[in-house]
Amino acid sequence: MNKVEVCFSPTLFQHFARKDTVVVVVDIFRATSAIVTAFQYGAKAVIPVSTIKEAREFQAKGFLAGGERNGEVVDGFAFGNSPFSYMNGGIAGREIVLTTTNGTRAINIAAKHSDSIVIGSFLNLGALARWTVLQDRDVVILCAGWKDRFNMEDSLFAGALTNLLLISGKFISDCDSANASCLVYRSARRNPLRFLSSCSHRKRLAHLHLEKDVEYCLRTDLTDAVPLLKEGRLVL
Amino acid sequence: MNKVEVCFSPTLFQHFARKDTVVVVVDIFRATSAIVTAFQYGAKAVIPVSTIKEAREFQAKGFLAGGERNGEVVDGFAFGNSPFSYMNGGIAGREIVLTTTNGTRAINIAAKHSDSIVIGSFLNLGALARWTVLQDRDVVILCAGWKDRFNMEDSLFAGALTNLLLISGKFISDCDSANASCLVYRSARRNPLRFLSSCSHRKRLAHLHLEKDVEYCLRTDLTDAVPLLKEGRLVL
Repeated sequence: MNKVEVCFSPTLFQHFARKDTVVVVVDIFRATSAIVTAFQYGAKAVIPVSTIKEAREFQAKGFLAGGERNGEVVDGFAFGNSPFSYMNGGIAGREIVLTTTNGTRAINIAAKHSDSIVIGSFLNLGALARWTVLQDRDVVILCAGWKDRFNMEDSLFAGALTNLLLISGKFISDCDSANASCLVYRSARRNPLRFLSSCSHRKRLAHLHLEKDVEYCLRTDLTDAVPLLKEGRLVL
Repeated sequence: MNKVEVCFSPTLFQHFARKDTVVVVVDIFRATSAIVTAFQYGAKAVIPVSTIKEAREFQAKGFLAGGERNGEVVDGFAFGNSPFSYMNGGIAGREIVLTTTNGTRAINIAAKHSDSIVIGSFLNLGALARWTVLQDRDVVILCAGWKDRFNMEDSLFAGALTNLLLISGKFISDCDSANASCLVYRSARRNPLRFLSSCSHRKRLAHLHLEKDVEYCLRTDLTDAVPLLKEGRLVL
């Protein structure tokens, strides 16, 4: 049996890191939801970078550039991390460089420790679960959180995925944070949108008039895209 | 209104730390339960230190010494962190130096950032909640966790205390980890012992034949002792 564990913050990831573990990185509002959407709409690759400076360097070389800080699009970048901004024909076949407050940083922290990084969101939940079961390896779900703090929406997703992995019969959980995530999931599953109404980041996005994004990021199984990190680039 | 927040790991405490915040440190299995018990049985002070070396230096000066690593009593020390070991007449009026795997380290991390540190456990839950409401300040509940990882029993306690503070009408919570802790508490409150049967640290203690300690640490309101940190010493 393989183990599934949940890490609530990139700051804690050092305690979970092992080279041979599959790491599912999740930043529901909104980086990993946006990345999955980019692939659904034909992107060839997404290059996650941690700083705006790095993203500008790629942009100067002709890459499409996405950048978000504190929920808003970075000046001069084509995209932020709204999934809707990636729903256009212009990205088909293109390579996109992306930097976000929490998500791309979490991807790069994970990449320092593990060879197998995959992108999770509700939009690709079922396909991701099937792919993960087939790997036959231990799994850590890394919640990007909000500036290194626990957040509710990422742990809700962690609970949803843990639940599917346990149902597969191929995984066990001996991890308190995985079990707590399952509690969050069980509390939320009937109406995730209402459940998250008091969550801090949903309120932050509502303040930015991004309620449509929030709703979209909670939809499940819209795509079979399962982006993997290969030599610094996310690809299918 | 004052805010209540929950920090799931000492590693994350830097994001919560403010000088004027009351910090409730909790390590249910078993350091903070043992400390509260020591005061219930008449201890004059408990000096929390982070290393065995420091504890031995106090011991050499004539202090009673308690030390625990990975659930077992440190060689040459009078106590570990079983609450039962502090239930004896010998500690009345005495000063005890204590070092444990997670709890005393969390206390000392909190002390670097805040002037107001208090010890929480189920054993003093009601008295602690009353004391905390009277302070009329923001509160962070710092879970010691297990070697910097989230654990279920400390977040269960955090949820129980958050619940009481919200009931008081003097506190609000805009913190996802406080809200998740309340979910854990609501799932567990009918039978905390059974709820925690799958939790990693309870299993670890069962392996060490410490089931009686686990049961004891989940009893509520056995004492009104509310230990506070004053110049490096816990006192009433």
